[in-house]
Amino acid sequence: MILDIVILAAGQGTRMRSALPKVLHPVAGKPMLGHVIDCARALTPRRIHVVIGHGADKVRETLAADDINWVVQSEQLGTGHAVAQALPDITDADQILVLYGDVPLLRAETLQRLSTQAGVQALGLLTVTMADPTGYGRIVRSPSGAVKAIVEQKDASAEHLLITEGNTGIMALPGNQAAQWLSSLSNDNAQGEYYLTDVVALAVSHKVPVEVAQPLDELEVMGANNRQQLSVLERAWQQREGLRLMSEGVTLADPARLDVRGTVKVGRDIFMDINVVLEGEVEIGDNVDIGPHCVIRNSRIAAGTVIKAFSHIDGADVGERCDIGPYARLRPGTRMHAGAKIGNFVETKKAEIGADSKINHLSYVGDAVVGAQVNIGAGTITCNYDGVNKFVTRIDDGVFIGSNTALVAPVSVGAGATTAAGSTVTQDVPAQALAVGRARQKNIEGWKRPSKKT
Amino acid sequence: MILDIVILAAGQGTRMRSALPKVLHPVAGKPMLGHVIDCARALTPRRIHVVIGHGADKVRETLAADDINWVVQSEQLGTGHAVAQALPDITDADQILVLYGDVPLLRAETLQRLSTQAGVQALGLLTVTMADPTGYGRIVRSPSGAVKAIVEQKDASAEHLLITEGNTGIMALPGNQAAQWLSSLSNDNAQGEYYLTDVVALAVSHKVPVEVAQPLDELEVMGANNRQQLSVLERAWQQREGLRLMSEGVTLADPARLDVRGTVKVGRDIFMDINVVLEGEVEIGDNVDIGPHCVIRNSRIAAGTVIKAFSHIDGADVGERCDIGPYARLRPGTRMHAGAKIGNFVETKKAEIGADSKINHLSYVGDAVVGAQVNIGAGTITCNYDGVNKFVTRIDDGVFIGSNTALVAPVSVGAGATTAAGSTVTQDVPAQALAVGRARQKNIEGWKRPSKKT
Amino acid sequence: MILDIVILAAGQGTRMRSALPKVLHPVAGKPMLGHVIDCARALTPRRIHVVIGHGADKVRETLAADDINWVVQSEQLGTGHAVAQALPDITDADQILVLYGDVPLLRAETLQRLSTQAGVQALGLLTVTMADPTGYGRIVRSPSGAVKAIVEQKDASAEHLLITEGNTGIMALPGNQAAQWLSSLSNDNAQGEYYLTDVVALAVSHKVPVEVAQPLDELEVMGANNRQQLSVLERAWQQREGLRLMSEGVTLADPARLDVRGTVKVGRDIFMDINVVLEGEVEIGDNVDIGPHCVIRNSRIAAGTVIKAFSHIDGADVGERCDIGPYARLRPGTRMHAGAKIGNFVETKKAEIGADSKINHLSYVGDAVVGAQVNIGAGTITCNYDGVNKFVTRIDDGVFIGSNTALVAPVSVGAGATTAAGSTVTQDVPAQALAVGRARQKNIEGWKRPSKKT
Repeated sequence: MILDIVILAAGQGTRMRSALPKVLHPVAGKPMLGHVIDCARALTPRRIHVVIGHGADKVRETLAADDINWVVQSEQLGTGHAVAQALPDITDADQILVLYGDVPLLRAETLQRLSTQAGVQALGLLTVTMADPTGYGRIVRSPSGAVKAIVEQKDASAEHLLITEGNTGIMALPGNQAAQWLSSLSNDNAQGEYYLTDVVALAVSHKVPVEVAQPLDELEVMGANNRQQLSVLERAWQQREGLRLMSEGVTLADPARLDVRGTVKVGRDIFMDINVVLEGEVEIGDNVDIGPHCVIRNSRIAAGTVIKAFSHIDGADVGERCDIGPYARLRPGTRMHAGAKIGNFVETKKAEIGADSKINHLSYVGDAVVGAQVNIGAGTITCNYDGVNKFVTRIDDGVFIGSNTALVAPVSVGAGATTAAGSTVTQDVPAQALAVGRARQKNIEGWKRPSKKT
Repeated sequence: MILDIVILAAGQGTRMRSALPKVLHPVAGKPMLGHVIDCARALTPRRIHVVIGHGADKVRETLAADDINWVVQSEQLGTGHAVAQALPDITDADQILVLYGDVPLLRAETLQRLSTQAGVQALGLLTVTMADPTGYGRIVRSPSGAVKAIVEQKDASAEHLLITEGNTGIMALPGNQAAQWLSSLSNDNAQGEYYLTDVVALAVSHKVPVEVAQPLDELEVMGANNRQQLSVLERAWQQREGLRLMSEGVTLADPARLDVRGTVKVGRDIFMDINVVLEGEVEIGDNVDIGPHCVIRNSRIAAGTVIKAFSHIDGADVGERCDIGPYARLRPGTRMHAGAKIGNFVETKKAEIGADSKINHLSYVGDAVVGAQVNIGAGTITCNYDGVNKFVTRIDDGVFIGSNTALVAPVSVGAGATTAAGSTVTQDVPAQALAVGRARQKNIEGWKRPSKKT
Repeated sequence: MILDIVILAAGQGTRMRSALPKVLHPVAGKPMLGHVIDCARALTPRRIHVVIGHGADKVRETLAADDINWVVQSEQLGTGHAVAQALPDITDADQILVLYGDVPLLRAETLQRLSTQAGVQALGLLTVTMADPTGYGRIVRSPSGAVKAIVEQKDASAEHLLITEGNTGIMALPGNQAAQWLSSLSNDNAQGEYYLTDVVALAVSHKVPVEVAQPLDELEVMGANNRQQLSVLERAWQQREGLRLMSEGVTLADPARLDVRGTVKVGRDIFMDINVVLEGEVEIGDNVDIGPHCVIRNSRIAAGTVIKAFSHIDGADVGERCDIGPYARLRPGTRMHAGAKIGNFVETKKAEIGADSKINHLSYVGDAVVGAQVNIGAGTITCNYDGVNKFVTRIDDGVFIGSNTALVAPVSVGAGATTAAGSTVTQDVPAQALAVGRARQKNIEGWKRPSKKT
């Protein structure tokens, strides 16, 4: 079966009160349209056609991909008209699925069910049964259960209003009928628009069977027209992610206080405390313990590592049984070997930290290669930047860097060397040596303290 | 129409288990009574009379204002008695609105509706229709819909209990009847109190029309008698604020995790991540991005600025396209010019930071004037305090402060000057000069490390 | 009455997807079984028998206690079989209560009610009335209200399915019947298991009265078979704790964003902002104000202290009217005297801080004894570790430590002494003296900045 998918994404979204086209507003860090495209891709269609209009350039640029055929709808004349814009590029499809760029929570499995149900001969409708279907077109069925019509809210009789099955607008058109149906649509209605929904009446009148599928929950077919609705979708997405992680073996201190914006792979027996935010590609090994209020982005955390409260980890590769935080800030290019420790108020960047090495307090270690079993004292700064260039600091195995040491890169500290507290180290330190770069202390007795100046 | 408003605020609130008078317990950072006074002010009454009793002095002192007439009710003999205490100061009002100091979510528009509905001839009642009106006096209406009586829960027949319209106690008294009605009240009841509610029966018997208005939601008329109820009001307030911000163009990662305690003005296309707390007067420009777990108080954040996780900003004026955090702490008197950057574990106080200047790591910059294009290295400390006096540090345009520099104020660093890493700078540095204030490094080979003392 | 309690804790909990035995999964930081044991202890039984199987060694080791009799059930042959394993150790009890190791929210008062209701002659059943009892055995009663039978979901008629009273499995067995009943159970059922529930039928047939008690809410009898259910129990527990704290006089900015994992004692008029996490034994005095995103563990906070955002306090003893944070990290052994202040990006460990002393910024103070009225400047480091040994720093009353000072322990600074900013202090400083340990500044005019290397 040749499958094409058309995604309608031309709307302006005035109620968003935004300079950003509506379909680019993000859910879980990804544009709504991006979610819909990913859902479409899961069915491996021949091609995905995205109909754009308002902010077309911005949309196209944001989501550029080879498998997308961008179709510009210059005038917004209704959903039927929008789909028709894509038809010239879909001449021989067996089935055409129609999705909406602002309905981002649709599951691929639901879409697959609709596609399969409809096949190549029937019109497929995704309908949803709701406690309160107000505003939705109602699905009118014959006594035998066959779909007879869709009645819009404004045209609905009292009897129709009792129907709780609503039309989602998501459809599978049989390829052999689509062109004829779309060209038969009329805009003789209050809005003067061509409605895709009207193909249902055409199918019924042409005796084309109408097949129905339903989503697992209402949220799959909910669209966002304003930021309040967007927030509902956001939380629904996060709830799904929370349930997924818990089912895979993660204990969440509070599923309502987890935010996943990207792709998270997890092992077993992971604990995530409250308010953890995970972004981008994150991989977390077995028995990792993540404290409250942590942000982790594009990082790999190996098994047995403990991350304490208020840690911020971005672009890091963390080995097994590491100890991080609280208030540790790992920037991109940080690589911690097994058993390494980065403590409070420490920032690392492009830094390799060897096995069992420790940077426990108040330090900046950037552009550095640190060996194993190194102890870096509190208040250590790698002076990696001269205002225009960045230089590397090398610290070999077993080094002891005294507190309040400034290491002026490029500089190397040899294996087993020591630096005295308060030193500024500007030259390489040989292995096993002690580097001292500080003034001798003098005590001046009977010092008169400054007095208050007025 | 001469409008006076009486707010009843004399109750003790024993169930709060608090030394603070009940009406001073805060919702969204402001005493409940403060919210009610603000609501009253929105109607621009001639005068606001606040009836106080328990903790009268504390209440008066906390919310002192010229437009408030404080009326002390020395004995708490019921709501009717409380209003009567204010009457001597209200001799010629056309309408008297009665509000409650522990019902803080009432909207001014609701109160205005009640006032308008009642006018000068009718008794106005604010009633509320509830799913569960248990405990509320029920509004009994005639077949034509006219209010006939209020029946208290304990006196209600089975039929009355089916009524879902409850009395909120909030009323508009016609000025020409109030004195007579209040003096006619009886305390011949189980509690021995004078109930304001009884004026409804008087109005009905005197053929004074009773007009009704309703709030937009139940929460508007909910009072707080304990901290659990207080928390319900708090969250309801925050939900309102979240909806307001979203409607104005702010995306909230989670509306249930936003706290606004003050007045927040926002532009468009702002993103606020989870757990943001905004306090006092806050103004946020277009396209500002606020990361998770940030606290912002009494500050202005101009357009395009990015604030990263765990930042704490108080009393700051932040220019356009600034880059702040994570873990940046801006204290009062911080002013960042456009494009400036304050990074992790940096504290600023009374500090002007020029355009495109950077304080990226682990520094304290206080009582400082920093020019444009300045780079302040990691571990820089402005030593602004000698134990009794504070002094200013001046750093001119284009300066490069090396890492781990102590700047002992008062001190100036001239334009384009450099300080060497690890220096203590005690004297002014001329423009374009290099200041070095550190000892030369010596390496002592074959250093014997300390051994374990037992 | 001789009371024995049997807790069934042998299940594997496959759906947890965990290497940890199910009953060890924590709620509020304590294993579920630990909660059940604590509940049992509240009734001061003669003995608590815990029937273990999967992960028996791990369970026994984790919750080892003198008052527990561990009974290993080597094969899991049903609840009746499990209880029977404990019987040889309970020969003469008057009553045997049966609890479940994965039902952790049961209140002691509920259990007491069940025990009392049943006495020594009746079978006691804990039942629960639910909106949706699907899956629960239904309690079938005679017209007079006497329990006649429990009908399992799968055996229930349409009429039975209407019953909303379900069996919780929690029971009080009369000691004089238990042995006989348990030995009469049959495993002639689909699962081939011996069901404890079947004793109800035996009691009815033997004309032993069946007495019923009910919990205060459904959550008391809810078990956790997967992590999603575990999270429901977690949040329910936290909600209880929130209500308790509010009833005792704590204002919670958001009861849904509080986590208590341990024992928290509170005074009155405490404010806890959002996302506070309290662990272990925590005691908080009157009028303490705890800011957002704080973690407090095993600490005592005396009256009037203010803790600002992002503070992390562990094993500290904090005096009255102290001022802490934001971003303060107090590690175990920190003791703050009244009026002391620890500010941003400051870490303390085994440190006594005297009255009214201040460590306001970016410092590490460990293994230190600091007197009263001391001011420790920004960037101060106590160099307490030489790589193998830890040493103490003593700072006497009224000392002024200049910014960026490294104090190389063991070292003492005498009363009223001063250290110059940027000094490394390696020798004791006499009282009233000034210690200077820094190089003199030189300015090199016309310094040529580094150029970009390519």
